[in-house]
Amino acid sequence: MEEVKKRVTEFSLEAHDLYLNRSVPYLEEPPDPLQFYRSWIAPNKPCIIRNALSHWPALSRWTPEYLRQKVGSKVISVAVTPNGYADAVSGKYFVMPEERQMTLSSVLDIIEGKGQLEKAVFYVQKQCSNLLEELPELTDDVEPHISWMSTALGRLPDAVNFWLGEASAVTSSESPRQQRCVYNRVCVCVDDAFTVSVHKDHYENLYCVVSGEKNFILLPPTDRPFIPYGLYQPAVYHQRDDGEFEVVEQLGSEVPWIPLDPLNPDLEQYPQYRRARPVRCSVKAGEMLYLPSLWFHHVQQSHGCVAVNFWYDMEYDIRYNYFQLLESLCGAASAAGPPGKSSVGL
Amino acid sequence: MEEVKKRVTEFSLEAHDLYLNRSVPYLEEPPDPLQFYRSWIAPNKPCIIRNALSHWPALSRWTPEYLRQKVGSKVISVAVTPNGYADAVSGKYFVMPEERQMTLSSVLDIIEGKGQLEKAVFYVQKQCSNLLEELPELTDDVEPHISWMSTALGRLPDAVNFWLGEASAVTSSESPRQQRCVYNRVCVCVDDAFTVSVHKDHYENLYCVVSGEKNFILLPPTDRPFIPYGLYQPAVYHQRDDGEFEVVEQLGSEVPWIPLDPLNPDLEQYPQYRRARPVRCSVKAGEMLYLPSLWFHHVQQSHGCVAVNFWYDMEYDIRYNYFQLLESLCGAASAAGPPGKSSVGL
Repeated sequence: MEEVKKRVTEFSLEAHDLYLNRSVPYLEEPPDPLQFYRSWIAPNKPCIIRNALSHWPALSRWTPEYLRQKVGSKVISVAVTPNGYADAVSGKYFVMPEERQMTLSSVLDIIEGKGQLEKAVFYVQKQCSNLLEELPELTDDVEPHISWMSTALGRLPDAVNFWLGEASAVTSSESPRQQRCVYNRVCVCVDDAFTVSVHKDHYENLYCVVSGEKNFILLPPTDRPFIPYGLYQPAVYHQRDDGEFEVVEQLGSEVPWIPLDPLNPDLEQYPQYRRARPVRCSVKAGEMLYLPSLWFHHVQQSHGCVAVNFWYDMEYDIRYNYFQLLESLCGAASAAGPPGKSSVGL
Repeated sequence: MEEVKKRVTEFSLEAHDLYLNRSVPYLEEPPDPLQFYRSWIAPNKPCIIRNALSHWPALSRWTPEYLRQKVGSKVISVAVTPNGYADAVSGKYFVMPEERQMTLSSVLDIIEGKGQLEKAVFYVQKQCSNLLEELPELTDDVEPHISWMSTALGRLPDAVNFWLGEASAVTSSESPRQQRCVYNRVCVCVDDAFTVSVHKDHYENLYCVVSGEKNFILLPPTDRPFIPYGLYQPAVYHQRDDGEFEVVEQLGSEVPWIPLDPLNPDLEQYPQYRRARPVRCSVKAGEMLYLPSLWFHHVQQSHGCVAVNFWYDMEYDIRYNYFQLLESLCGAASAAGPPGKSSVGL
């Protein structure tokens, strides 16, 4: 398997030389659908599009006051964790957030620091088209789809999601130390060994920041050989009556997940990550990130950041087929590695 | 390497289940550029387009008489072989045709059976934009580019080639026995062990048949693991004054080529080819084949068939990068196979 390891490594490095950019380029206006398909979707490359949301009323309207008045009484799904780490790795567990039904007003109270100090981090992030399903009153402030993207792909988005959360809420996260220092949250079930991960989706993703700022770390699918995977028992957080959290193990088989923290990668444990070439970018209010399917990503946000994203399911064509080959090779190469090692990266 | 062999085999079979068609579909009219990009170029799938050339004067004009009158005195490059096999494998050689400068009239004489019986097969097939470079007088009868394809790709073709040849001239070929029987050619330097091959190009290819018919055997790039390669010493044919041919070895290192004859595959020698799934199609006068980049192909034609093709260089993006990985894996897996075997297929 050493030979395979060598070849997939060469392949990954070649991708960077051949067609990938060293940073995320900007487009200064909404693109022509065909040009966008050809230059970004087909070659599977990210970019940031400016001036594509200028006509959204949301950009000026979506203040906490407006949201309270318009949809404050609506009950929405909120991800609740002790630390802001939704879908992350803790010890042998892959821990998902507690999902709680709350009014949007009460979430805004927490974000604005009104009322009692919570021992939890709240994040409106349910990825099931929650904008259209749970908050249809807000749809007119944005758009139900991005017309040039829908034209490019020949179909409407599969989901439109609304994101609102605290600075410590991340799709992966800040480091526990930093978070504890700033927010003084209490984490009873996790310790400093809690690691923050990256993940990928099978969607073409247009991520639109309405207010605040989101910071992304992106890794191309071709960097897969350098990204470690482990197998973890699924679990969910549960906040007890005393406010403390416990981790409740779930039934079901172990799930593969990435244990590496891209903000502070443990290169002793995952030396292969030295060869990865993460790209960082900051997406500001009024900007839109095109995050291509199967790109690994890690997201941090400014406090009170509001965003809307559009998910278009990817095409399961030759590129997907090739990625599946790469995945299986990375698994195979590692399976032939030292026994007892859980990582399925190279 | 058995594990790698298993995985690339699974990958190839999955491609057929996932997105490939069992035959080449037809489009009944010239497509919209974006739709064509999305449905055929990006997923790298062939199709035949009807009614896309109806406005070409060439369809009715290009008789032998017209070509004689219009460009008969033009000197053009002609591929000359004893057997119609341009770029094929003979013994340890990869043999390229003798390239001869002839008037188009004299080529037409041969095709029409006028004059003395030739001991050679002639094929106008120089792939260096010979229509625009050598026969610009014919350009107005066709088009200098295919507008919807140029719009789709955002650029003009890299080459426009004119093809005219005998039935025994093939980019690969008929079986030697059939050919000898029908055309009574004399092959002094080759024998029945001469094999006829398939090849691939790094172009998006629009192949337009003006008169006659072309028969293609196509294999997707994902079938690469089932396609044997060997290393061959480059050589060219040279017709001596007595009309007989000799093979002249060229300087330079060995070239990788496919020794398999897809019309009559030797499954004893290349058992892996049992798993390949070649697709056959026939492209008739007035039809256009979209032959995607990196598809392996073998072409036969009806006698006197005239065609024009447009080559647009492929994008060297993620799909090319992935194909290079597949190539290197196929080489690696075979290199670990029995010693002395020249094939670099799996």
